[in-house]
This record gives sequence, structure tokens and C-alpha cells, in this order.
Amino acid sequence: MTGGISLKTDIEIAQEAKMKHIADIGEKIGIDEDYLELYGNYKAKISQKLWEEIKDRKDGKLILVTSINPTPAGEGKSTVTVGLGQALNKLKKKVAIALREPSLGPCMGIKGGAAGGGYSQVVPMEDINLHFTGDMHAIGSAHNLLSAMIDNHIHQGNELNIDVRRITWKRAIDMNDRALREIVVGLGGKVNGYPRQDGFIITVASEIMAILCLATDFKDLKERLGKIIIGYDKDDNPVTAKDLKADGAMALLLKDAIKPNLVQTLENVPAFIHGGPFANIAHGCNSIIATRYGLKLADYLVTEAGFGADLGAEKFFDIKCRYGGLKPSAAVVVATIRALKMHGGLKKEELSKENIDALEKGIENLGKQIENVQKYGIPVVVAINKFTHDTDREIQFVKRYCNDLGVEVALAEVWEKGGEGGIELAEKVIDACEKESDFKPIYELDTSIEDKIRTIAREIYGADDVEFTKEAVKDLKNIEKLGLSHLPVCVAKTQYSLSDDPKLLGRPKGFNITVKSLNISAGAGFVVAMTGDILTMPGLPKSPAAEKMDIDEEGNIKGLF
Amino acid sequence: MTGGISLKTDIEIAQEAKMKHIADIGEKIGIDEDYLELYGNYKAKISQKLWEEIKDRKDGKLILVTSINPTPAGEGKSTVTVGLGQALNKLKKKVAIALREPSLGPCMGIKGGAAGGGYSQVVPMEDINLHFTGDMHAIGSAHNLLSAMIDNHIHQGNELNIDVRRITWKRAIDMNDRALREIVVGLGGKVNGYPRQDGFIITVASEIMAILCLATDFKDLKERLGKIIIGYDKDDNPVTAKDLKADGAMALLLKDAIKPNLVQTLENVPAFIHGGPFANIAHGCNSIIATRYGLKLADYLVTEAGFGADLGAEKFFDIKCRYGGLKPSAAVVVATIRALKMHGGLKKEELSKENIDALEKGIENLGKQIENVQKYGIPVVVAINKFTHDTDREIQFVKRYCNDLGVEVALAEVWEKGGEGGIELAEKVIDACEKESDFKPIYELDTSIEDKIRTIAREIYGADDVEFTKEAVKDLKNIEKLGLSHLPVCVAKTQYSLSDDPKLLGRPKGFNITVKSLNISAGAGFVVAMTGDILTMPGLPKSPAAEKMDIDEEGNIKGLF
Repeated sequence: MTGGISLKTDIEIAQEAKMKHIADIGEKIGIDEDYLELYGNYKAKISQKLWEEIKDRKDGKLILVTSINPTPAGEGKSTVTVGLGQALNKLKKKVAIALREPSLGPCMGIKGGAAGGGYSQVVPMEDINLHFTGDMHAIGSAHNLLSAMIDNHIHQGNELNIDVRRITWKRAIDMNDRALREIVVGLGGKVNGYPRQDGFIITVASEIMAILCLATDFKDLKERLGKIIIGYDKDDNPVTAKDLKADGAMALLLKDAIKPNLVQTLENVPAFIHGGPFANIAHGCNSIIATRYGLKLADYLVTEAGFGADLGAEKFFDIKCRYGGLKPSAAVVVATIRALKMHGGLKKEELSKENIDALEKGIENLGKQIENVQKYGIPVVVAINKFTHDTDREIQFVKRYCNDLGVEVALAEVWEKGGEGGIELAEKVIDACEKESDFKPIYELDTSIEDKIRTIAREIYGADDVEFTKEAVKDLKNIEKLGLSHLPVCVAKTQYSLSDDPKLLGRPKGFNITVKSLNISAGAGFVVAMTGDILTMPGLPKSPAAEKMDIDEEGNIKGLF
Repeated sequence: MTGGISLKTDIEIAQEAKMKHIADIGEKIGIDEDYLELYGNYKAKISQKLWEEIKDRKDGKLILVTSINPTPAGEGKSTVTVGLGQALNKLKKKVAIALREPSLGPCMGIKGGAAGGGYSQVVPMEDINLHFTGDMHAIGSAHNLLSAMIDNHIHQGNELNIDVRRITWKRAIDMNDRALREIVVGLGGKVNGYPRQDGFIITVASEIMAILCLATDFKDLKERLGKIIIGYDKDDNPVTAKDLKADGAMALLLKDAIKPNLVQTLENVPAFIHGGPFANIAHGCNSIIATRYGLKLADYLVTEAGFGADLGAEKFFDIKCRYGGLKPSAAVVVATIRALKMHGGLKKEELSKENIDALEKGIENLGKQIENVQKYGIPVVVAINKFTHDTDREIQFVKRYCNDLGVEVALAEVWEKGGEGGIELAEKVIDACEKESDFKPIYELDTSIEDKIRTIAREIYGADDVEFTKEAVKDLKNIEKLGLSHLPVCVAKTQYSLSDDPKLLGRPKGFNITVKSLNISAGAGFVVAMTGDILTMPGLPKSPAAEKMDIDEEGNIKGLF
């Protein structure tokens, strides 16, 4: 992904890895083998019984890896997360990393897994990118059980008086399948129920994924499942999963999915990979449960959040840390020279040449994202994820820019060199963790939904103001009526710009954010403010990656990465 | 299920079980721990590497458990299969059993798992009945990847000229969801593809499930996947999964699902549970691969087939044994006094009272099913699965009936007593295995599809003749045109009667079978003759079992069984 000198592909490097037995990996952070539920020799789920033993321990340092706004040039946030973990390990620190679980569907579309790259990957990557330990499938089952119970309830007499025109709960599948975006179900006459408009979303976009990631324990999970609003009755009252008596069975289907998964990096650093919600309509972070386990077990836990700091870090701080009672110690903002030059107006094919002017213009994006993290009271370190064509002058330019802001900066050569390439970064992160961190969310929960959105837009995006469409105003009234104004806000916005216009790169100014509508994720515990059309079901490209995939009788895999 | 004296429920008995570590279970039949891929402590997949080591060994004895035609009174075929395995174990035989994997969807509908009952169950039953080792989910993913690639191909220009009106490949989901039976996909305009009629089947009804169960190795699996016919082009030519280049990725998604699963019975007998296709539109047996492993590893392998001997045993012998090169040594036909009385015309509420007249009438069903198994040259033992209200006179009547036919018969009290209750049965089965078995399918492959269906209908069902509708005649011509007449036949027929009319119980005579249409499962390798409307997507009942399911923080499960 973040191409360098190595001529080996990610899958080649991954398949050459000397993996240790997962019991040995667990042992590194003091997990007794009895607490591991093995899935083969290299994957395990961690028994909930371990929590009782470790819950009163002091937390380790929580380090968030975030980035500038993504561009087609790539930032390599996961790669830096893995590499930083490996570097801390080389410095003899007791360290673990926590990443999101990739979704199977997109693997079939565009080539490329989601498990880091080069010599900073998590393994076994083919398993992690396919069925892994079945969490995604369990979430899909729980989701579609609720769907089936909705239509069955209506078919069997509709005691709850559900309005078939106002069912907001769609079905889910872990596949890129555009034909399922808008469908009509219940055709074929009386025995098949009542026809109605429906659609499928991809499983990672399910509210259940967000719930799994925000639940603090199993009891909390079940309560959140019960609170899911599936639609409205004919008197405008919300209908919940609990009303349909679906919450118990859904929790049962998630009994193993709720347990964190343990794997390892190429350098045998323990890696929790658990949960992976969308970063626009949801909060884009791995599970609170896995993060908490990591903090109790390791002295340093390195984790990441989706997209740039305006979306990922904001939601990490304001939603995840708030619900999980987490106190981050430091944040790393990842940037690449290439991406900064794109923010400065260059096209992808112009990136190989040195261009200080473009860099100077584009670096404002990095500046704003640094500022964003600092607003939460967290010490920042910038990581320049190095690419082959980056020139010394360009690198020096970025370093000077950061130093002028009083911010530490280090090159990350972890793609090419593994942990060894992240030593300087790791040392600066360790120093940052020793600084005083005064973490505080950007808004309080007891303000209105509008005010929360305004605060995020002004403080984090740098917008002048927020406009609400007529539909959004109606939605706000409904949220107030339902008594849900105390929830945090999850803004669904383009990841490419600080604004809601994907074409405004760099650090745009003098713009407004338009909220078109608001959705309620009452189970997950946030209100989603939609600033554009967000695709919750991807499609396959003209030549899907799946066409090139193969496996022979000896298990040799082709085309997965 | 087959109610007796015990006051404990199946889940209570199962949860009290003293399970051994799955490595100890594997050791009983000589599987080195290195060949086990653990899924926790009580489930494992068996590495394909073991096959190389054992493939040249002599096969053990293969024992099929089949039954009379099912009635609402229940036969307890799985319970007898487990119990017989446990009894053989008590007699110090090296034994294993092989069962089908249950589907998650139906668990949510009507209470009751599919893992035996009473003291003859396989465990851990809650896992086996929910996600187990993920096979069902993997099959669903492979199925829906093919679906997505079909619609994507059409959307991206339709190079293969697929006729959207003639796509026979539906989508699949492991849920009881009647609203998905008939749907329209691709709505919403140009970006969502071309609108067309579609539908979902339940995952166990997927041709991929049948393929997984009939494949003899991974290479065979991939070839069969490639042969799947997904529909026709506008020139009437079949379009296959291979044409869509989907076979490699589908095989990749099934790389673990193809490996047999090992669990144990309540008495620690090794149990292979792998694959579970429908017994009407497919062949209703567990996988050939698991069966072969069992035969190489154990001296006795007890397995079962779906529904009564007219469907399950016929397909076991004519499809599975033929493709797998298997030679069964003996068959057990399970009957209950209650069910035989229903075949004699009694209603469910009349079954508790002794009624020799009804029994005399209904026992003809048992007689025909014994005859059916004997036609394949296999020694038969009848198992009377004992219920509380069965009277001595009734039991003696059945025993005398069997003895008059020259067939061995034994009481099975395995529900109440475990293996101890099946000792007599086990001894008779051992004797039967020593008899000469002269196994031979009922038809040869080089006859026409019509002739194969006629042979099955006359020889096995006892029908006078077979009628083909106009549509069926057209389908037969297409099969001939495609050069697929050499395939075996899989009849989709009601399980309740030897005829195609579910109301004709006992041993009907003077009837014809009507074939309404024929479907091609070119990948699985059979032609399906449809004699009625077969539901491939169940619905949920008015009060789904899911409503009563729950799990607490300690993992205590309620309502699953």
C-alpha cells in the first residue's frame, strides 16, 4: 500500500512470517492459556473470565493513531499502528495493539486486505480478511434475525401496529452487492407476508456492529440491543427490538462475538482485532471491550480510528472514550508527503516529483488535524509515513512545519523495516505519554443535538456554521420528543475533506456544513447527522478481485492481496 | 423429543455433560493432536494433512440409520444414531458417528435443536446448533458472492449475454424469513443495476451445501463449484460459475468449511458433524469427506440420512455411496410404536392408548422401508425407539412382525439410558455387519433420467407409474441437450408418505408419482425431480422460539431447546 523498496508483496511477506503459537503471544502480556479459546494455533478469543482477574489493575497508556484527511495516495494508518507497536516492543516495552476487524465483502471487490502492510502487518492475514473467528457472521445473523422477526410479527397479525412504510431497520449481508441496495420483499401472495420496500446494508454498517463496539460488558450489550429502534407504529411511537422480544436471542447469537480476538503482528506483538464499524454512519473504532483488555494487560496500547482526525479521532474521543471511560495519553497523526501534496492540489500522477509549493499549501490539512487533537488536551506526535520518492527537502519541510508548531515529528519507515523503522517515533510517543494529558470531550452531553453538531463543525471542521434542512429540523424534533437529545452525535460526512464537500482539500475556510437528515442509533447510543448521501452497501468493480482469487489443494492462496 | 421417564430437559442433560478435551476424543480413534485445528476445547476441525496418512487403510464398517416415513409423533433417528454409537463404545468397539450439521435458522423458529436427545446427544449442543465452526456462514458467503458476481456482471456490460429472466441461482441466508422468498432486486435506478425477480433460499438448501457434502477432496470441490449452472444466456446456453470466474474465490471462502468437524457424544464417543443438505431438493446426508475419515479411523462408523428410507436411504445409497465409493455393511430402520399407529390412522392425541389394530395397519410402512433397504443388498436391523406409553403387547407385535420377515429387531432405550439402552441393538448390528453385504445401487447411471425416476418410483415408493407434466418433458429435453442424462436423480418428494401425497400414510398402493419439473444441480452432480412445491425458505411461527431465548452474563442459556 505505502510502496517502498521491497519487491515482495504483502501476502508473500505475511506467508513467510514466523508466527508463534497464540498461547505464547498471550503469555507476553500475562494471559494464562486457560483464558484463551483457540481457533487453530494462531487465533484465539479471550474468555470473559479473565476480566474478573484484571479489572482492578491500573490502565496502561492509550495511544491513538489518526491521520490527515485521506487521499487516493494513501496514508498507511494501520501500517503505522502496527509498526509503532512493533517499535515499542523493540524498546522492550510491554505493548499490544488494537485494530478493527476487516469486512469480507470489500476484499472481493478491490484488491487489498486491511491488516497493515509490508513488514508491519498482522497475521494470519488471510484468515483475518476472510471469516476470521466468525464475528461478522454472528453480527449478520443477529441483524437478520431481527429483520425476520419484524416481518413475521406483521405477517402474524401485527399486534404492535408497526407501520410498514416506516420500518428503518434494513437487512444486512457481508458482501458488496449493489443489487440489494433497494429491493421489494414479501412478494408472492399471502403466505409470504406483506410486500414492502426494503434494502440490504453491508454488515459492518449494522447498528449491531456499533453496539458490539460500544458495549462495556455483556449486560450492556443486551440492553443496547433491546433499545434498537426498528421503525415506528401507526401512532408515531418507536418500536424497539425489545418490543419484538428479539434482544435475548440476538445476544445469544453474539455470545462469542463479544469476546475479543487475539492475533499477532509479524514481529509477534499481541494484536487485539475486534469489531469494525463504519466511520461515517458509525464511530469507526474497534471495541471498547478489547481496548479495555489491552489497557489492563499491556503498558502501552496502540489503537487507531477510521478516516482522518476530523471524523475518526473526534468520534474516538467524544463517543468511544466517553462511553468506555477511557483516558488517552497521546495521539499520533499520520501524514505522507504524497497525500499532503494532493491536498496542495496535485494529481496522483504528479506525486513522484518534488514540489515544495504544493506541500506548503497542502500541509495546512495536517496543521488543522494536529490542532483538532490538541483541542482534546492530548499530546501529539506527527508520523511521516515514508515513501520511496519523498525527497529530503520535502521531509525537512514537514519536520520544520511541525517544530514551528511545537509538535514532535518522526519518520516512520515501518512498511519497509518493521519495528526497527519506527524507533524514533516510538521514543517520541513514550515521551509524549509522560506529558500531562488533560483529556476532555469537545462537547457536553447536556447540550442540544444542534449545539453538539455546531460545536463539532466549528471547532473540528473549521466551518462557519451549520445549516439544517427541513427534513433535519423534523428529525431533530422527533429526537427531542423521544427524549434522546442527551446522546452524543455521530456525523456522517465525506472523509476526503474537513468540509462536507469532498473536493475541498487542504484546509478549507468560509464554508457551512449542511445536515440533511438525522438517524437515531438508540442501541449504539448516538444520533447520526447525515451531511450527504452515504453508501452503506458497496458494489463490485468491473473486474472484481474475486475473479483472480484461487487456492490450490495444498492451500496456497492467490489473488487475495 | 422421544419423551421418557427422565424429568430433565435436553439442555439440562447436555449442560451436565462431562465433556473431555477434544484432543482426548481424537486420540480415541488415533488422531494425533497436531492434526486438530481447535475451536475452543470441545470442537475441532481435522487437518487435510491427516488424509495422506490414513488414506490407504482398510475401511471400517459403515452403518446407516434410516427410518419409517416421519410423522408428527417423531422417530428419533439422530437419537438412535448417537445411542447406537454409544452402545458400540460400551461393547469396547472402536466407533465413531457421523451426523449432519444443523442449520441456525430453524432453531429460531420451532424449539428444538438437531443433536439427538435425552442421554444420546452430541455436545456442546448450543454451539453445534448456533454458529458451530462457521461452515454454514462460509457456504452462505460463497453462495452470495456468486450472486453478487452475477448481477455485477450484468451491470458492467453483460459480456456473457446472461438472460435476466432465466437466472436460476437465488441468494441464500441462514434464517427463516418468508419475506425473502420472492423479492425484486436492483431497484433504485442505474447505479443499482438491472431490476429483476429474485429470492432467497435458506443456506442448507444451497447447491454449495450439496457440493461440499459430495466432494471427495478439495480439487473435486473446486471443479464442482465451477460447474454450477447459474442460468442461461439469451441463446439458451447454460452459464456457469466458472464462466463468471467465481469458482476460485468460492473455493477460497470454503477452505476451512471443507474440513470435517469433530465433537463428542455425552458418553465421549467421537462424532463427525459435517455438512447438512436438504433431504428433498438435495441428498440429505453428511459429507463424504467426513464419512471417509470416519471409516479410516474407526472400526464402526454409524451415520444417518434424512427423512425415511424412501428418500434418505435411497439417496444415501444411489447418490452418496456411488460418488464416494462407499460400501455400507448394515442398515438400521428406526420405528416408534406411536408413529406406526399414526400410519395406521390414529391422531396424535390417540397415541397414548394401546391399539393393536392401528399398529397392524400402520406397520406396513415399516415393512416397505425394510424391503427398500434390502433391495440394495444390505442386512437390516429394526430399532424400536421406546416411548413411555408403549405396551408390552405392542412391542411384542412389532418384534413378531419383524421376525416373521426374517429381520432382526431390538428395543432402543437410548434416550433414557444412553449407550446402555442400546446394547442389544448394537450386538445385532455387529452380527449384521458380519453377514455378507452385496451392496448395489437400484439403477445404473447409463439409463435415461425418466428410467431412473421410474425405477425409484416403482421399486422404492411402490408406485404403479410416473407421469411427467409438459414442463417436466421440456426440462428432460434440456437435460438431454446439455448432455447431463448420465447424472443420478434426486427426487424432491414429501417425506410423510411413500407416495407424493402427504396424506397417504402406511403403505399406499395403486398410485402414480407426478414429476412437475426438473432442476439441474450440475455442480452437486444430480438432477432434481420435483414432485410438488418444495419450500426452500421456511418462515417463523406465530411465537418464534427466538422470543424465549436468553443468555445471562454468566453465559447461562435459556430457551434454545
